[in-house]
Amino acid sequence: MELVNVERHERGIARVVMNHAAARNALGEDLRNALLPVFQELFDDAGTRVIVLASALKDFSVGGDLSRMDTLSDPKNGRRRIASAHKLARLLLAAEIPMIAEVRGHAVGAGAGLVLFCDTIVMGETASIGFPFPRVGLAPDFAIGYTLPKRIGLTKARQALLYSRSYKGAEALDIGLADDIVADDAVAETALQRARELAALPSLALSLTKRMLELSDDALTVLDFEATAQPVCFASDDFQEGLAAFREKRKPNFDPSVQ
Amino acid sequence: MELVNVERHERGIARVVMNHAAARNALGEDLRNALLPVFQELFDDAGTRVIVLASALKDFSVGGDLSRMDTLSDPKNGRRRIASAHKLARLLLAAEIPMIAEVRGHAVGAGAGLVLFCDTIVMGETASIGFPFPRVGLAPDFAIGYTLPKRIGLTKARQALLYSRSYKGAEALDIGLADDIVADDAVAETALQRARELAALPSLALSLTKRMLELSDDALTVLDFEATAQPVCFASDDFQEGLAAFREKRKPNFDPSVQ
Amino acid sequence: MELVNVERHERGIARVVMNHAAARNALGEDLRNALLPVFQELFDDAGTRVIVLASALKDFSVGGDLSRMDTLSDPKNGRRRIASAHKLARLLLAAEIPMIAEVRGHAVGAGAGLVLFCDTIVMGETASIGFPFPRVGLAPDFAIGYTLPKRIGLTKARQALLYSRSYKGAEALDIGLADDIVADDAVAETALQRARELAALPSLALSLTKRMLELSDDALTVLDFEATAQPVCFASDDFQEGLAAFREKRKPNFDPSVQ
Repeated sequence: MELVNVERHERGIARVVMNHAAARNALGEDLRNALLPVFQELFDDAGTRVIVLASALKDFSVGGDLSRMDTLSDPKNGRRRIASAHKLARLLLAAEIPMIAEVRGHAVGAGAGLVLFCDTIVMGETASIGFPFPRVGLAPDFAIGYTLPKRIGLTKARQALLYSRSYKGAEALDIGLADDIVADDAVAETALQRARELAALPSLALSLTKRMLELSDDALTVLDFEATAQPVCFASDDFQEGLAAFREKRKPNFDPSVQ
Repeated sequence: MELVNVERHERGIARVVMNHAAARNALGEDLRNALLPVFQELFDDAGTRVIVLASALKDFSVGGDLSRMDTLSDPKNGRRRIASAHKLARLLLAAEIPMIAEVRGHAVGAGAGLVLFCDTIVMGETASIGFPFPRVGLAPDFAIGYTLPKRIGLTKARQALLYSRSYKGAEALDIGLADDIVADDAVAETALQRARELAALPSLALSLTKRMLELSDDALTVLDFEATAQPVCFASDDFQEGLAAFREKRKPNFDPSVQ
Repeated sequence: MELVNVERHERGIARVVMNHAAARNALGEDLRNALLPVFQELFDDAGTRVIVLASALKDFSVGGDLSRMDTLSDPKNGRRRIASAHKLARLLLAAEIPMIAEVRGHAVGAGAGLVLFCDTIVMGETASIGFPFPRVGLAPDFAIGYTLPKRIGLTKARQALLYSRSYKGAEALDIGLADDIVADDAVAETALQRARELAALPSLALSLTKRMLELSDDALTVLDFEATAQPVCFASDDFQEGLAAFREKRKPNFDPSVQ
C-alpha cells in the first residue's frame, strides 16, 4: 500500500490521498518524501488542472515528525530537518495549479501548514485546524508564519500562534480559515464540486491569477505582471473560445483536449 | 453629449459622472480617454477636495473593451492595450484626493477595478460587483490583483478571482467590498454625505493619510513617511485652526477659501 | 508618585501602569520619557515573560501632546517632536515579549497607537479607541499608519483614519480592533488571565513567533527565518520538556526557574 495515492477524475482533476496510517499522516520524512514526487509530477503534467488534497484516514494529519529528537539538539541537524521540509513547502508555494483541501478530523501543526498551501479549504463540521507549536516548545514552521496571516490576517494569526489555538466550524468560517463548512460526510463531494467549477474554467487564466495573487502586495509589481500575463491570455485559444461563447450566448468549452 | 461630466458641489466636492450609453460604460479606449484628462485636471486643482465617481446609466460599468479581438492575439498589440489601460490605473493609484464610488447596477471586470481605486464604496442594495475574468479566458487586470486583496484580504480575493464570483448586498458588506449598502435611490445622497464629511476635514491631512496607507505594509517606511508628513501638518494653517477650535470648543473651519 | 509603575505578578508577568493624571495619560514627552526606560528594562530582563499595559486612570490615554504648538510650525522642531516619539515607537515595534493592552475609558490618537503595539487588546464594554487626527489638522502618527492596517485591514483602516472614527464594543470586536470585549470591571482580570496563558508557554518560542509575524509579508523571508528559528527551538530545554510532557501525558513546565 502506498503512503500517497492519486485518483484521477474527469477534466484533469487529480485527488491526492494521504494514507500513512502508522503515523496518522504526520508529515515526517516518509510522508513528505512520498508527497514530493507526486506533486512534482502533477505540476509537470499539462493534463492536470485542479488538485484536491485529502486523507484516507479519520484525521487529515496530526502534525510534524518529532521523532529522533535526541539528534535535533545539534543545530546542524535541526537546520537539515527544516531544509528537508522546505523542499515540499517551496514546491507548494510555487504551485501554478489551484489546490483544494478536504479537511476531516484533525489538521494539526505541519498538517495545518499543508492545508494552508491550498487555495480553497473545505472543512467538515467536526474537523479542526490547530497550531500547538509553543506547547511543545517550537515556533511555527512549514511556512505557517507566512500562509496563516495571509489567510486570516495578522490579528487572528497572532491569537492562533501565540495562544496555541485550534479552530472548527462556525469560528473557522468566520475568521476565514475555512471557505466552506459542510457535514463531515459531504466534505469529499463538496471539494469535488469546487474542483469541477475550476476545471470548467481556463487553466492558463487560473494559473496566472493564482501567481498574481502571490505577489499582490506591491502595486507596481502587479501592474508589471498584468502587462505580461494578460497579453498571454489575449493570445490564447481560451480567449477566443470565451469571446465566441459570450457572443453566441452558450457555455464556453475551454481546453477541449482534456476530458 | 460628453462621455464624462463633472458636477461641482459645495466645498470642493467634484462628482465625476460616466455616461457612455452605447458601451454601458465599458472601459474601452473611448471612456478611458475621456476619464484621464478629467481626473488629471481634478488632481491638479487645489480647489477639489473630494471626488465622487458615479454613472449616469443604470449600471456603473459592464467591464472592459473586448473589441478588436482579432488583433489582440499579437502580444505586441496585447501589451499596448494593457499599457493604455495602465495610464488611467497609475493615475488613480497615485491619487492624493479621497475618492468615493457610487455603485448602482453592475460593476463588472474593469468596471469593478475602477470602483476599487476608490477609498469608500457606497453600493445600492441591488447593485453587484463581479470578477468574471476567467470566464472569458482572461487574468484580472486594471490593478485588481493589487486592489482587491488589499480591500477584502487574500482569502476572499482568491475566491472572487479564481471562481469568477460576484457580490451584492449583505455579502459585499460582510467581506468588506462595500463600505455602505443603502437603498438604490439613496446611493447618490449617501455618497454625497460621505463626501461632505471629508470636505469638512483638512485636505492636506487627508492626502497625507491616504498616501501613508498606500505604503502601510512596511513599518520603517511608515515611520519615515510620518516623520516627514506630520511636521508638514504641524506647519499648516489647518493645525492652527484645529487647535484653536479644540481650545474654543467650536467646530473647526478648515480651508476657508474653498466654499 | 511615579508616572509609570510596574507591578510584578507570578511567572514573569509585568503590569505596566500609566498614571499621569495631570495629562490624562496624554503621551507627551513626560510620559514617553517615563515609559521608555521601563520598557527597555523589562525587555532586557530575562525574567519578564509577558507585559500587560494598563492605566491607573479612568481613561487609557487621551492622545498626544499638543502643547508648545507655537514652536511646531518650524519644520525642524516638528521633526524633532516626531523623532522623540519614534524612540518609543521603534522600541515597541522591536519588542520580543508578548504584550497585552487593558483598555478602559478612552484610548485616543497616540493613545490608540500605544494600544496597537500590543499583541492582544482587551477592551471594556464602554471603552473606545479613536483616531481623530484630521480633526486637528494632523496625519496619523506613532506608527498607526502601519499598526492599524495590519490589525484591522486596509479597508477598515481607511474608514478609521480618513473619517476620524472611533470604535467600541461589538463593532471594535467585529473589525478586529479588540480581541476581547468584557465588562469594564473585568478588564484587568481578563488581561491577567491572558497573560497567565502566555506565561505558561515557553518564552523562547513565543518571542520567535512574535518576530516571525512581524516579517510575515514575504514568503521567502519567513522560510529563512523559520530555518533559523526552529533549530534554536529544537536545541532548547523547552523542546525537551514539551516532548517529555507530551509522552508522559502531563502538563509541561517551561522555564521552571521563573516563578
